[in-house]
Amino acid sequence: MLDSGKLVLLISPKGKRYLRVVKEGNDIHTHDGKLLMEDIAAAGYGKMVKTHLGRKYKILKPTVHDLIKGVKRQTQIMYPKEIGYLLLKLGIGPGARVIESGSGSGGLTVALAYYVGDTGKVYTHERRPEFYKLVTRNLKWAGLEERVEQFNLDIEEGFQATEADALFLDVRTPWDYLHHIPKAVIPGAMCGFLLPTTNQVSDLLRALEKGPFEDLEVVEILVRRYKPVADRLRPEDRMVAHTGYLVFARCIEPYVEEEAASAEIETAETSESSEKTETAQEPETGSGDEQADSAEEDTESPNGM
Amino acid sequence: MLDSGKLVLLISPKGKRYLRVVKEGNDIHTHDGKLLMEDIAAAGYGKMVKTHLGRKYKILKPTVHDLIKGVKRQTQIMYPKEIGYLLLKLGIGPGARVIESGSGSGGLTVALAYYVGDTGKVYTHERRPEFYKLVTRNLKWAGLEERVEQFNLDIEEGFQATEADALFLDVRTPWDYLHHIPKAVIPGAMCGFLLPTTNQVSDLLRALEKGPFEDLEVVEILVRRYKPVADRLRPEDRMVAHTGYLVFARCIEPYVEEEAASAEIETAETSESSEKTETAQEPETGSGDEQADSAEEDTESPNGM
Amino acid sequence: MLDSGKLVLLISPKGKRYLRVVKEGNDIHTHDGKLLMEDIAAAGYGKMVKTHLGRKYKILKPTVHDLIKGVKRQTQIMYPKEIGYLLLKLGIGPGARVIESGSGSGGLTVALAYYVGDTGKVYTHERRPEFYKLVTRNLKWAGLEERVEQFNLDIEEGFQATEADALFLDVRTPWDYLHHIPKAVIPGAMCGFLLPTTNQVSDLLRALEKGPFEDLEVVEILVRRYKPVADRLRPEDRMVAHTGYLVFARCIEPYVEEEAASAEIETAETSESSEKTETAQEPETGSGDEQADSAEEDTESPNGM
Amino acid sequence: MLDSGKLVLLISPKGKRYLRVVKEGNDIHTHDGKLLMEDIAAAGYGKMVKTHLGRKYKILKPTVHDLIKGVKRQTQIMYPKEIGYLLLKLGIGPGARVIESGSGSGGLTVALAYYVGDTGKVYTHERRPEFYKLVTRNLKWAGLEERVEQFNLDIEEGFQATEADALFLDVRTPWDYLHHIPKAVIPGAMCGFLLPTTNQVSDLLRALEKGPFEDLEVVEILVRRYKPVADRLRPEDRMVAHTGYLVFARCIEPYVEEEAASAEIETAETSESSEKTETAQEPETGSGDEQADSAEEDTESPNGM
Repeated sequence: MLDSGKLVLLISPKGKRYLRVVKEGNDIHTHDGKLLMEDIAAAGYGKMVKTHLGRKYKILKPTVHDLIKGVKRQTQIMYPKEIGYLLLKLGIGPGARVIESGSGSGGLTVALAYYVGDTGKVYTHERRPEFYKLVTRNLKWAGLEERVEQFNLDIEEGFQATEADALFLDVRTPWDYLHHIPKAVIPGAMCGFLLPTTNQVSDLLRALEKGPFEDLEVVEILVRRYKPVADRLRPEDRMVAHTGYLVFARCIEPYVEEEAASAEIETAETSESSEKTETAQEPETGSGDEQADSAEEDTESPNGM
Repeated sequence: MLDSGKLVLLISPKGKRYLRVVKEGNDIHTHDGKLLMEDIAAAGYGKMVKTHLGRKYKILKPTVHDLIKGVKRQTQIMYPKEIGYLLLKLGIGPGARVIESGSGSGGLTVALAYYVGDTGKVYTHERRPEFYKLVTRNLKWAGLEERVEQFNLDIEEGFQATEADALFLDVRTPWDYLHHIPKAVIPGAMCGFLLPTTNQVSDLLRALEKGPFEDLEVVEILVRRYKPVADRLRPEDRMVAHTGYLVFARCIEPYVEEEAASAEIETAETSESSEKTETAQEPETGSGDEQADSAEEDTESPNGM
Repeated sequence: MLDSGKLVLLISPKGKRYLRVVKEGNDIHTHDGKLLMEDIAAAGYGKMVKTHLGRKYKILKPTVHDLIKGVKRQTQIMYPKEIGYLLLKLGIGPGARVIESGSGSGGLTVALAYYVGDTGKVYTHERRPEFYKLVTRNLKWAGLEERVEQFNLDIEEGFQATEADALFLDVRTPWDYLHHIPKAVIPGAMCGFLLPTTNQVSDLLRALEKGPFEDLEVVEILVRRYKPVADRLRPEDRMVAHTGYLVFARCIEPYVEEEAASAEIETAETSESSEKTETAQEPETGSGDEQADSAEEDTESPNGM
Repeated sequence: MLDSGKLVLLISPKGKRYLRVVKEGNDIHTHDGKLLMEDIAAAGYGKMVKTHLGRKYKILKPTVHDLIKGVKRQTQIMYPKEIGYLLLKLGIGPGARVIESGSGSGGLTVALAYYVGDTGKVYTHERRPEFYKLVTRNLKWAGLEERVEQFNLDIEEGFQATEADALFLDVRTPWDYLHHIPKAVIPGAMCGFLLPTTNQVSDLLRALEKGPFEDLEVVEILVRRYKPVADRLRPEDRMVAHTGYLVFARCIEPYVEEEAASAEIETAETSESSEKTETAQEPETGSGDEQADSAEEDTESPNGM
């Protein structure tokens, strides 16, 4: 027996999918006939339910992946491949407080809200009223509206949160808003950006280099799918080749007062930080003992090709 | 001021990283001199702290990504690129109950424990005592031991949990344990597998096809990193080309009783399911209205190459 | 003025392409009106020619890439990305004598014939009469029929050439024909294979390992195309993810007599060749002095991800 | 029996490779002892030859791939994966006349010379005297010097050839030399460029767009190698992720006189060419009948991810 408010994923005999909230009277009209919500709730996850024409539908508990795929959208939404990676890089998990802009259709907002749990919060900013409303609708549908504060605002004036643990911008000119970030996040917070073109990545890196940002990273994530046939295993013929470049940086406090204290230290600092840049390719992580990083900087020779 | 038990990531002027727990007396001996834990706790995240030789270290709040990188390891551990993707696909978030085997060095265990939050639970199985102990140590170090039940057992006899929301196997011959899965998870639960060779993927698919598994998927995740230089933006010269293939499937209850009820329906069922297989490439997700999936099955022509 | 027999590539105002042979009366009927071949021949490469409706078409000299794209096809043909790589790996250039099977639609046959020049020869085998005829037609159209000997035969009985410099098989079960190869090629000849599935690659490797083949290689070639827009440079949204795996091997003479001469040497031989296998990852090429190969075998760590 | 001047590739029991010219007295000193050239010549391709210490070396006929790998180098040289693709795109085969700059170490020069055969010619330009000499040496070593005209010149003043069929530039600022190209090549000739950074690609596209260039293309070529083990087939752990971006364009004559003839046509021309741009994504190639190109422009949806 499923409680009211739970989400169900229904799959037709032909593989068609319906993602719905359990609610009295929320029956589903399909090409195979009508499905009664009370039948669905009574059967429960992993069971079958029949339409009034006798066609059997599977009832599944949707994953967050299903939720992301299921949001009603009017824009291109982010892919799970990028979302999964940025969750880890930005450290977004139970209890995290995260800033997002723009909300777009709310695909990422739903994922963020899912992961911050009941103890975290998402602060999402969207300038365009129609998208603001769409996100409200999608969050309600996913039952995650309690975890999100939505702002129908341009971020030109700054972000509507402080001391956030992380921040993610999916806007056309993120470099215009960097100066607002230090006021909105905790010192050392991870920031992420999604950009479709190499020109934008260059422009953003140029702005980030001016600080107070460190540990810049640029990555692309590619997913290659295979036809799941045991005796004829092979990749799909075609794949998504590009959605965007992910850029990451840590927002570091400028340390102004401290450095002003001594000119001598200041000088040392400068040589240190240039040193750091050189070795940034080879960070080391220690947990009691040190571990060597992957040596990315191999000398190349064409022999391997 | 940081409370005892909090994790700190310390970064040296040269980029060397130390991930430690805030605890009285837990001072750090570096090549740049000694760092006092009480200084670190007093300064807090995003600040600087000096060694007794006057070298300045940054204090950061580690992300889950830093945690995964920081586990002490004696085996190859999973990469964040795979972990991020499987979290979404398996629907592992706050409150989830997840089965894992083997634990290995505990890299994935730490990530799973982080994401299930205080209300979820990870059930991890590891046959080899030395790894079992290593995982215990890594979980303590990360402060996540409360969220994990560890079993120093072979999974030949089955899993030590029932009604789990998801399951992940990183073992050499996962096909040997598939029959234990239906007893361990909720109906319709997502299951994931990591395998290094194509031969193993074929063997696993062959076993999964016998049921009760559906929605088989095989993917590879590739991360391509760029040198973050605004005026000379270009990919790194070399990259990780392979860690493993991720295989996903839903564990579906066999629906035995229901189907036994009527031979007629049984027949219909058969034709339906063959139909389903055909269209499994083109699932649809509905949230009020239907959305078209990416048409993966384009006809190819060499002109584009 | 273009001589009869030359190939011309005509490009319409809308980018539509026509690849034709210069020949009296070989006029072209387009949606933009009729193009007279005598006008085309008179204008020459790089010029414009008008249809009877006044639409201007560009006249270009086709490259071998245009030729490959232009063959009339009834099968999937090989992509330029694979053809370019195999030409180099197999050493197919002016004067080479090459064996091919099956001919398919003749896309690769055209490329091979182009590259072996007037002094080389292509021996192509095709079982199915309709494809045999299609290849004949495509070779005539490209003006390359003099360089090719076509055989409408199954290769079950062997290849119709001896002492060939190289051999390429694009057939479903290449392992069935390996025993014919030593009789058909010079000792040490490079052999290439194209296979769509990992299962076939495994089967072929298993057969090749039995000899007399060495230097086994398996590669995939991926081409990623970018939208050529200066201010918005980015990869195409989608790409071809798979055509097939290329397998390469050298066919080595069994050295039977020599080895039979001395049991002692035989033993030495065995230990040598096992040694060789170990170091096969790190071959060195010398041209006066030795050059180190790219070290492919880096230890991995997840930190780079 | 191998004639003087032939190239031989010798492979040691441990897989070490020596690429040498057959010439009296050109004996080889290896770690396994001395190999006499007269023994090598007498044995011939595909046979074994022994050092004075009794170690057996294989004698093979080198492919062009072996030649490229074997050039003595002082710079990064191009990879076979890029060379194979550009040969096809630029239409470089027997009889072609090709312009190259800079020569670098001569890796590409050797490949081009190999493919143009006895009836073609390579015109290669190199500013730095030490590289000019190195290329001379490498061409002699490969026996291909007759097919190449070398110029120890900067291309600032233009190229030392006219009516070339194709041109390839591997220089830091190719946009500085575009205006010399129309005088150096036949109308409609294919031009290729190799550039390591996205910024350079943008700069080059900006310059090419000003004309007289058309059919701009930007691609990356990736080669993914597999461990050739039948029962444990899997990709290598690491791969070369980037060598450079290949840019291609056709150099088209400006058609000045013709267009000046009529203002009316001029207008038509304008609308035509804008039309052309739109449909440039979907060229068609006809050889009697038309063939559809790969539809690269699919609408994306996140469901496939």
